[in-house]
Amino acid sequence: MESLIVNGESPMKNSYKTKMNAAGREVLTEINGEEHIPYMGVGKYKVKGRKASPPIRSCYDYPDDGDKRVKSIKEALVRSGIKDGMTISTHHHLRNGDYVANMVFDAAAELGVKNLRWFPSASFPVHAPIIKHLESGVIHHIEGSMNGPLGNYASSGKMKGVGVLRSHGGRYQAVQDGEVHIDIAVISAPAADFFGNANGLRGKAACGLLGFALADSQYADRVVIVTDNLESFPCLPWQIQGNNVDFVVEVESIGDPSLIISGTTKLTKSPDRLLIAELAAKFALEAGIIKDGFSFQAGAGGTSLAFTVFLRDIMKENGIKASFVRGGSTKYLTSMLEEGLTDFILDGQTFDLDGVRSMRENPGHQYTSPFTSYNYHGKGNFASMIDVVALGATEIDLNFNANVVTHSDGRLLHGIGGWQNCLFGRTVILPVPLFRDRIPVIVDKVTTLTGPGELIDVVVTERGIAINPLRKDLIKAVSGSGLPLRSLKELKDEAEKIVGGAPSKPKFKDRVIAAIKWVDGTVIDVVKQVDL
Amino acid sequence: MESLIVNGESPMKNSYKTKMNAAGREVLTEINGEEHIPYMGVGKYKVKGRKASPPIRSCYDYPDDGDKRVKSIKEALVRSGIKDGMTISTHHHLRNGDYVANMVFDAAAELGVKNLRWFPSASFPVHAPIIKHLESGVIHHIEGSMNGPLGNYASSGKMKGVGVLRSHGGRYQAVQDGEVHIDIAVISAPAADFFGNANGLRGKAACGLLGFALADSQYADRVVIVTDNLESFPCLPWQIQGNNVDFVVEVESIGDPSLIISGTTKLTKSPDRLLIAELAAKFALEAGIIKDGFSFQAGAGGTSLAFTVFLRDIMKENGIKASFVRGGSTKYLTSMLEEGLTDFILDGQTFDLDGVRSMRENPGHQYTSPFTSYNYHGKGNFASMIDVVALGATEIDLNFNANVVTHSDGRLLHGIGGWQNCLFGRTVILPVPLFRDRIPVIVDKVTTLTGPGELIDVVVTERGIAINPLRKDLIKAVSGSGLPLRSLKELKDEAEKIVGGAPSKPKFKDRVIAAIKWVDGTVIDVVKQVDL
Repeated sequence: MESLIVNGESPMKNSYKTKMNAAGREVLTEINGEEHIPYMGVGKYKVKGRKASPPIRSCYDYPDDGDKRVKSIKEALVRSGIKDGMTISTHHHLRNGDYVANMVFDAAAELGVKNLRWFPSASFPVHAPIIKHLESGVIHHIEGSMNGPLGNYASSGKMKGVGVLRSHGGRYQAVQDGEVHIDIAVISAPAADFFGNANGLRGKAACGLLGFALADSQYADRVVIVTDNLESFPCLPWQIQGNNVDFVVEVESIGDPSLIISGTTKLTKSPDRLLIAELAAKFALEAGIIKDGFSFQAGAGGTSLAFTVFLRDIMKENGIKASFVRGGSTKYLTSMLEEGLTDFILDGQTFDLDGVRSMRENPGHQYTSPFTSYNYHGKGNFASMIDVVALGATEIDLNFNANVVTHSDGRLLHGIGGWQNCLFGRTVILPVPLFRDRIPVIVDKVTTLTGPGELIDVVVTERGIAINPLRKDLIKAVSGSGLPLRSLKELKDEAEKIVGGAPSKPKFKDRVIAAIKWVDGTVIDVVKQVDL
Repeated sequence: MESLIVNGESPMKNSYKTKMNAAGREVLTEINGEEHIPYMGVGKYKVKGRKASPPIRSCYDYPDDGDKRVKSIKEALVRSGIKDGMTISTHHHLRNGDYVANMVFDAAAELGVKNLRWFPSASFPVHAPIIKHLESGVIHHIEGSMNGPLGNYASSGKMKGVGVLRSHGGRYQAVQDGEVHIDIAVISAPAADFFGNANGLRGKAACGLLGFALADSQYADRVVIVTDNLESFPCLPWQIQGNNVDFVVEVESIGDPSLIISGTTKLTKSPDRLLIAELAAKFALEAGIIKDGFSFQAGAGGTSLAFTVFLRDIMKENGIKASFVRGGSTKYLTSMLEEGLTDFILDGQTFDLDGVRSMRENPGHQYTSPFTSYNYHGKGNFASMIDVVALGATEIDLNFNANVVTHSDGRLLHGIGGWQNCLFGRTVILPVPLFRDRIPVIVDKVTTLTGPGELIDVVVTERGIAINPLRKDLIKAVSGSGLPLRSLKELKDEAEKIVGGAPSKPKFKDRVIAAIKWVDGTVIDVVKQVDL
């Protein structure tokens, strides 16, 4: 584990081992002392080998009565054998309301442990206190989405190691494939029993699902459940199975309910964004995608949400029923289930209280996980079975390549989420505004390549729709529809005319602060320290 | 795989590598060319190592649209890379109505494959046609329970290799630990979709659960679903997850519904057996086990069923509610759920049509698997959390050791099922008749040791109850209760007096025809060829 501190320490470019990948990006081949493979193109990397194999345990080491409770997170960490250089994982089911990750690293700090790798499924602004543990050396680096302050910290070049960003599916893949070995997984559970069976459906911190922790529960050496709502055995359903759990810790509160679920996810009120969402839905209708038995994936961003609402209207108007919908459940999606517009919602997460309620009550919800939905190193997954999906992007280039992780100023402020995985849907639409804060979204070259253009089919803006020339079928399907079809070049030129030129490029230093993984574990790009 | 044919070929005793195990049984240390560890005592074998790790797969090798159907079982076997010496698994969810195992080996025979290891979760009389594949060399040997004709065939010394019998939990353990590597798992599914998601709840062959196939779906190199009821995606719930499945085959019929589920499981009508069951239930009441929040495991044998019915009556009379019950669901058990005598049935299998219906309709059922319930090499399991369980036995010795696999004539005619696993319950009762066909059940030494006496607490017969001296707490609890307490010696003597002496010992040849595994993968005993 000492190798973890080899890289990233020196900002000298020459100290990196790099290689040009198939997308023309110079990427690290060694990250934090471990070898990584450069991106080879979609479906080009032929994986070999066998899955990770956690230690065999035996019942003689666990209590006969099933009661695995220990007194504190600290005790659980000690009994899990915590030591310097280990990898500890947490999850973002409680989003910006999470208390647990901070408690875990406070406990690690009290124990005097150093150089940990934090492997969250995502981090949020609530985790800003983690910065002190990065400063003190308790945590060496973070692998996982860094939303907000932690991304900003990394972008400023202060994190010792190199961050690694993965999609939800890529995180499952990395754990499954043994690329990331988790020593101790700590799973926050809104409902759990003393054996470790757990779900997110009940309790004051109810968040819906715990699917992001599935890989951790299956593959980590030790698994700790932290709950503020201990139920009697058996706590059903088993989103996390107690047979994978070593210790259960009861705490006063695992999170702030008001920040876990926002109550009601807000539809965009921006007339431009509404127009874009409506145009995207119209495109899907004209292209013949919205028909009986089709499927779509619903997001929870303002524009994605609006897209779902317009889809719903079209379905109702035309008497169309979906075969299934992939959530993020929201009140809009659950209403579709309740109105019979679909029989099934395959939930990946839950975005509002209506979603949590519906999931608890309506058997039409099926909880999924990155294993079923997104893992590229599986025997197929659901992402490629989705007829249409609408996703966001911070930048798109003329070849439809897109960026979702870095801001226009070059700072790493966003995670990948399921975005890369959803690109495998049959028709991928990016409904985006032509500019944000007068900065054009369509550019010559995206700052950070997160998704290859060959998987992105349609860009919908308030000033027109660009179809990827690779999708001749879509171009043909909507010809004569009256939809405002444009080329990306035309849209880019128009945007630049309006704002007075192309956006200025962000400036970077040589130091690599993060690597971006593709769904198959290869490195598609790196992010460098911003030069402010 | 050639090593598979090393052992068993020669009936010479000297060709075996053997060792005396901790139970005083001389067992093989090499079985079919592979090393095995002799039984060391309960909880004494300290397992090391890591779990089996199946090959990493990738979505680029699977259809984007999720449709994994191939035309026939034969095509699925060929595409799974079937070759000589491989291990092929099937399951007994369809019990004596199963058509699929025979179809699989008929297809293998047509393909000219030889020396296969058949690894069923259990085999039944319906699988008698497998004998021709054992004769022709298509199958080298069977590892799994051999109920009826196949057990008889093995006992006659005709099977080339040595059979290996494992409990349900032991089968999961063996696969998980890499002791048995399954090359191709073939899973019969009463309901499935083209992606391979499957359950046993619907369709003409509905059987309730598919839990015995869980290990296979997780660890086999290739997984084939065979169904006669293809549903649209998603087939919910996912008892088997399509993400673990390689191929889906549709056939006309996977089984004979009249033999899959018997319609109604029959309560014993024998006055003696009813008396034994009633005595066992009374014992549990007097011992203070039947109280609010207790748990029990229900079997489906005539006496076990009667025990459940008497328990139910006691609970109703005394206003007692169980915290949970472990099934085998039957109409008796589902009525307890419906009457509020328990909130949860944790189902391992389903024994009658009421059980299947209730499981489909009542969310109080939770399907379990040998992983959650029985796997001894896990982080605990449910078996040790059960307050009381009533089990059968073919023989019991004066030290409470019991046999469930061989008949009084020495023939291997029964499987272990979950029997060994259930011995970890807090109080294990064996309600057995003193004799069967005038042959005493209590003996000096059991023919085949299947369960160590230290885990067996109470033997209930029609002529008295013997409590294991190790359970001083139970002896104290029922003192003064008026229950007919006896020693095993007294019961044995009485039985022998009635039938005129101890039963004659079965005669064996030197050839070992099967090994009996303990729950931790060690060898607790062997079975030899009968000398008729």
